[in-house]
Amino acid sequence: MSYTIGVDYGTDSVRALVVDTRTGEEMGTHVFEYPRWKEGNYCDPSANLFRQHPLDYLEGLEVSVVGALEQCGADVARNVVGISVDTTGSTPVAVDRNGTPLSLLPGFEENPNAMFILWKDHTALKEADEINGLARSWGGVDFTKYEGGVYSSEWFWAKILHVLREDELLREKAWSWVEHCDWIPALLVGETDPLKLKRSRCAAGHKAMWHKNFGGLPDEEFLVKLDPLLTGLKDRLFEDTYSCEYRVGKLSDEWARKLGLPATVAVGAGAFDAHLGALGAEIGPYQLSKVMGTSTCDMIIAPPDELGENLVEGICGQVDGSIVPGMVGLEAGQSAFGDIYAWFRDLLMWPVENVVEGMGGLDETVKHKIRKECADHMIASLSEAAEKINPLRSSLLALDWMNGRRTPDANQNLKGAIMGLTLGSDAPAIFRALVESTAFGAKMIVDRFVKEGVRIDGVIALGGVARKSPLVMQIVADVLNKPIKVARSEQAVALGSAMAAAVVAGVYKTIPEAQQAMGGGFETEYHPDPAMVQIYTGLYEQYKRFGQFVERETSRADANK
Amino acid sequence: MSYTIGVDYGTDSVRALVVDTRTGEEMGTHVFEYPRWKEGNYCDPSANLFRQHPLDYLEGLEVSVVGALEQCGADVARNVVGISVDTTGSTPVAVDRNGTPLSLLPGFEENPNAMFILWKDHTALKEADEINGLARSWGGVDFTKYEGGVYSSEWFWAKILHVLREDELLREKAWSWVEHCDWIPALLVGETDPLKLKRSRCAAGHKAMWHKNFGGLPDEEFLVKLDPLLTGLKDRLFEDTYSCEYRVGKLSDEWARKLGLPATVAVGAGAFDAHLGALGAEIGPYQLSKVMGTSTCDMIIAPPDELGENLVEGICGQVDGSIVPGMVGLEAGQSAFGDIYAWFRDLLMWPVENVVEGMGGLDETVKHKIRKECADHMIASLSEAAEKINPLRSSLLALDWMNGRRTPDANQNLKGAIMGLTLGSDAPAIFRALVESTAFGAKMIVDRFVKEGVRIDGVIALGGVARKSPLVMQIVADVLNKPIKVARSEQAVALGSAMAAAVVAGVYKTIPEAQQAMGGGFETEYHPDPAMVQIYTGLYEQYKRFGQFVERETSRADANK
Repeated sequence: MSYTIGVDYGTDSVRALVVDTRTGEEMGTHVFEYPRWKEGNYCDPSANLFRQHPLDYLEGLEVSVVGALEQCGADVARNVVGISVDTTGSTPVAVDRNGTPLSLLPGFEENPNAMFILWKDHTALKEADEINGLARSWGGVDFTKYEGGVYSSEWFWAKILHVLREDELLREKAWSWVEHCDWIPALLVGETDPLKLKRSRCAAGHKAMWHKNFGGLPDEEFLVKLDPLLTGLKDRLFEDTYSCEYRVGKLSDEWARKLGLPATVAVGAGAFDAHLGALGAEIGPYQLSKVMGTSTCDMIIAPPDELGENLVEGICGQVDGSIVPGMVGLEAGQSAFGDIYAWFRDLLMWPVENVVEGMGGLDETVKHKIRKECADHMIASLSEAAEKINPLRSSLLALDWMNGRRTPDANQNLKGAIMGLTLGSDAPAIFRALVESTAFGAKMIVDRFVKEGVRIDGVIALGGVARKSPLVMQIVADVLNKPIKVARSEQAVALGSAMAAAVVAGVYKTIPEAQQAMGGGFETEYHPDPAMVQIYTGLYEQYKRFGQFVERETSRADANK
Repeated sequence: MSYTIGVDYGTDSVRALVVDTRTGEEMGTHVFEYPRWKEGNYCDPSANLFRQHPLDYLEGLEVSVVGALEQCGADVARNVVGISVDTTGSTPVAVDRNGTPLSLLPGFEENPNAMFILWKDHTALKEADEINGLARSWGGVDFTKYEGGVYSSEWFWAKILHVLREDELLREKAWSWVEHCDWIPALLVGETDPLKLKRSRCAAGHKAMWHKNFGGLPDEEFLVKLDPLLTGLKDRLFEDTYSCEYRVGKLSDEWARKLGLPATVAVGAGAFDAHLGALGAEIGPYQLSKVMGTSTCDMIIAPPDELGENLVEGICGQVDGSIVPGMVGLEAGQSAFGDIYAWFRDLLMWPVENVVEGMGGLDETVKHKIRKECADHMIASLSEAAEKINPLRSSLLALDWMNGRRTPDANQNLKGAIMGLTLGSDAPAIFRALVESTAFGAKMIVDRFVKEGVRIDGVIALGGVARKSPLVMQIVADVLNKPIKVARSEQAVALGSAMAAAVVAGVYKTIPEAQQAMGGGFETEYHPDPAMVQIYTGLYEQYKRFGQFVERETSRADANK
């Protein structure tokens, strides 16, 4: 009888899940919402600046694990053998010589630059452009080549350089940088020295231009050419990286006590949430696994010998062992997916948050109730109304680049758009067009894989949108013209971490074995509707032309800057 | 001591204004909102179908005039010498042999096709396309040539043909057709026979392809080629047309009694609201007069000898005497202006009208109050927030074709669009982009007049938006890079009708004399801000490219139909 714990750090909250390693049965779970983040601290959405405070993560670690264990009873806690962690990424933080995030040090407590730079922060647009420019022109290796040939402002080096340039005080104190997914396991085993803590293969390979063919991170010469501010930093980072089946160490006494666990518990190397979600949803070779939440992460694994030297253009990278050890993990994704629906909800909230909010003669509790009701139910109500709309009749067509475009061909300068608006275009019709645009964005990725010779044998979906929105899932199935299976577990990502922890703890030898024993199977399958497939085939061509126009306009604007 | 009454039928309501003919002093006014229209009856905004019931007009005529007179006292009513009427247009209705709108006859009371087809109804898109195609290809005169070379679905013949084709029952009963602005004076004098009632020069010339050079309406041969359903209709319409200074007759006993006026009151020929608004706002040669409301009407008058044979391409027409007798009236306009702001308000109302509406535990009166507060104050709140936004920083750009494009180059198939959306784009930023788009649309018209050799010496504005929205007016001044004077009278249109009535009644010999005595002058002048002029010069170029893209996509879609 043994159990493992998966700890899944999402954008808004962290979840701990206790799982029976024999059956995959979910014994207990607890979610902790980041309190500082929830208040909107350290963020400026209009500037795409999104930072998270390490205290949100620390408090969440303790509360979520303890909370999940409380649901299981002491007997389970005593038999926990492993814990693995997944997080968003690239979400790096500046640390001192001891590996302590600067925002935990005096003088930096309220400095957003000293906090974790969340995956969706786009403040480093300029730096990403410079990296791309230099990688293509400096005469040496193009270090972006395993990352789809386009480096993104959402990634490690761009973010580091941006913050170093911007913040002189921080520049003096930042000794090294650590990804969120590497910091938590380091904390748990009590070894946070930046030179010793274990770095995740997926974070390094997909976001930091690490590749074994380069002997690790990019050349010092390249980095210094990019900016002398980076001089010497490479030596304060890492050479080796580790897949999710690697055992970082055992739980420190301090954390064993805090969490109420035996100090014998094995701690696995961290990984990105999407990758462990793909594990949890039972990814197999040539199965496109889509984590569909605020953004999407679209993953495929393929045997290295079959993929050979084939480099897929314009995706987020292909890294040996980044998802499943022994397989090449290919990653793509959309910068915004559910975030677009949430943006539209928030847009429609304007009168409630401004006009209603300022109304005299209306009780505060009533105002609060109205705000909550609208925030909680708007997307469901919009979906219900949108389901009845014929996309041909509504004449609307949207472009899903409200947060830039991650793949294919990363370009964070791109922006969203809507055409076909009439005085009769109402909120459900626009909502449906936005959903369709996210499905078209998904198809662009599928088309790219196929064009580059990576076949797709099936589509698996997991994540909040996959489980909660039949409307979205049906439209994605219709646009892709492929059936989509939705993972049964509500916590596929945390489950994937728990599977990895079972391998780390030695309960299983390989990830596929853990998947076989612990997998939850699928709860639904969406099948494309031939009539809609035909409609969307036409609209998709229009979507591509609209995209080409916006890309042309964007490069024109960039050139005039 | 004498008074005249201007009756101004707008889109949502009718206003009567009693004016002192010596000074232009406004003695009394009353507004009547159309009750059936207000309930949304006989309309389908998603299909751009907008019909109005004649009873809304009839009830409104009596209530508004009686209400306005009540404010003045019996002494004023006794000294009323003239009444003139303006309405929206082209707003035709099918009538029987007696000139009675079919919707006033048994069996047609609830039939939208038997009602007035409101100016902004776009159900006749296909018919307009056919008229344009035939006018260019049939080998005879191009009857659209005095209407800018493009016939619109908003106009007389397209609407008639559409309804005749669609409604067999109506086809049998429809003996002739009458514009709203011709029907009301006909009623007032008690002569509604379609062959005898007096037809307005501006309705006929701008919307019905009437021109003295063709000897009146288009050739029977042309009309029959368009559709045999039109056979013989020309003979049941009209040959002669009348300017607004023409006296149709005197008030019938019946209407004198109903309105509480002497039966000696002179009734003027009707005209379109915009044209009489231009009078009221003291239009003079080469002054661009913009009526800025739900849509815009942009008018210029020029001496015939100076304009010569010059035909301005792509506007809504140029007709001798259509605005001021003795001058050529040139008319252009935007299909939607304030309607776009109202559309956005209605879009944002969605949660209030759906989510809040369905909330349990919330009093009906509270819900009503919230709905009213949001509907009444939203545009003002949005404007206030939008004023602080730098258009460069928001990155948004919109296209103002949510109701098609009237001028330049009418194309009702075009639709609106927004680009530059990010997850940070909020309601005020989008609102501002929409306002800017309407200003860019205004500039397209100015550019066309100038390109075609019609100079613009000044800009005069009137209408609801001109008076109520400093934000909009400043942006229009910045985009046009021209100062704009706003007419002082809140009721410039009704005042224009009262001025015309003073000429009709013989108080003045000419319109300019009436304008001089009765004009209210200007209350504000907006001056362009050089910094904003520069910003908008760049955005305007982008607006034009965006428009070109949407036009290309629209013709592609039309070709695939």
